[in-house]
Amino acid sequence: MRICFIGDSFVHGTGDDTCLGWVGRVGAAIRQQGRDLTCYNLGIRRDTSADIQQRWRREALLRLPPEHDGRLVFSFGANDCCLDDAGRNVRVSHAESILNARDILTTARAWLPTLMVGPLPVGDRDVDTRVAVLSAALAPLCASVGVPYIEVFHVAAASAAWTSEAAAGDGTHPNAQGYAIVSEVIQRWPTWQAWYGSPV
Amino acid sequence: MRICFIGDSFVHGTGDDTCLGWVGRVGAAIRQQGRDLTCYNLGIRRDTSADIQQRWRREALLRLPPEHDGRLVFSFGANDCCLDDAGRNVRVSHAESILNARDILTTARAWLPTLMVGPLPVGDRDVDTRVAVLSAALAPLCASVGVPYIEVFHVAAASAAWTSEAAAGDGTHPNAQGYAIVSEVIQRWPTWQAWYGSPV
Repeated sequence: MRICFIGDSFVHGTGDDTCLGWVGRVGAAIRQQGRDLTCYNLGIRRDTSADIQQRWRREALLRLPPEHDGRLVFSFGANDCCLDDAGRNVRVSHAESILNARDILTTARAWLPTLMVGPLPVGDRDVDTRVAVLSAALAPLCASVGVPYIEVFHVAAASAAWTSEAAAGDGTHPNAQGYAIVSEVIQRWPTWQAWYGSPV
Repeated sequence: MRICFIGDSFVHGTGDDTCLGWVGRVGAAIRQQGRDLTCYNLGIRRDTSADIQQRWRREALLRLPPEHDGRLVFSFGANDCCLDDAGRNVRVSHAESILNARDILTTARAWLPTLMVGPLPVGDRDVDTRVAVLSAALAPLCASVGVPYIEVFHVAAASAAWTSEAAAGDGTHPNAQGYAIVSEVIQRWPTWQAWYGSPV
């Protein structure tokens, strides 16, 4: 099985001194069960849903040739909710985020098995209020397009380890413990377990 | 500092049950010294120099915005030396590999600080004879375009850990120990040390 993990800095694992992030941790957990999994990490710092919409398909096509069991996992939204450089408007409005997510996930699902992991908190109260709203709104959207969805916002926001690591870092990104917490939530997700529990 | 590592399956870290590869190991070693480094892994399985020539710039541009200290590390060549699906010709001839490398490295160096890590053995005697020749030929090429180059072919080919892990895996890719050996060679490279020893 080959999986492209597509998203923002939290997918990339920014701030993690082990250079694993949650993606590396879920991948290593599966490989250490003896399964032949290839994980491509396509997280890019500062990427919004609009940025991802522009690039995801080209990058994934190069990594998932049709002769292999290719899969897609998306996670984005936090950067949409941040203010633009002028500090006046959000980078991507809530309505546009939903439209972008619908377009990305509909196209993805028509091509390959696809999952969505919700957006994560950035450590700013105003921004995170919007991220929480977007995270909740992605649940019915994903259901409507047939993509399994897991929210992780509240797990991270309520985690003392995540919050203290982010404060000790750049204010937004956690370190190894914070990413391990997200990784564990995903590893316990029955939908995820069913994915890699199937022949790889 | 933000570095894009661009190349083939050995850059990706294929076969490593820790999901780090040599890229994750060199990145983690620097971050654990307290340095703010972002590593983007752009290794793709089966990529030849011709494949990389087609994609590297677009993918790196999205990850290295001009306001950050962006750098490039390339490593490719092994797939060029493999036979095509018909088993008759090499996928990319030696002469073309050299032309592709010259084009990639010249363009890269004109944009950002660039390093080249030599190709790695695939575990097939005939193929590896060609890889060794290409690895040697990349040294004067890199010198002529002003890109520092480190050969790693012989370190891997002579490593019992690399060879036994590859044999226990898919015959080509090592596991954690093999990648750790390559990582250590790069970490001891004075050119690499000078790179991250400068302000990041």
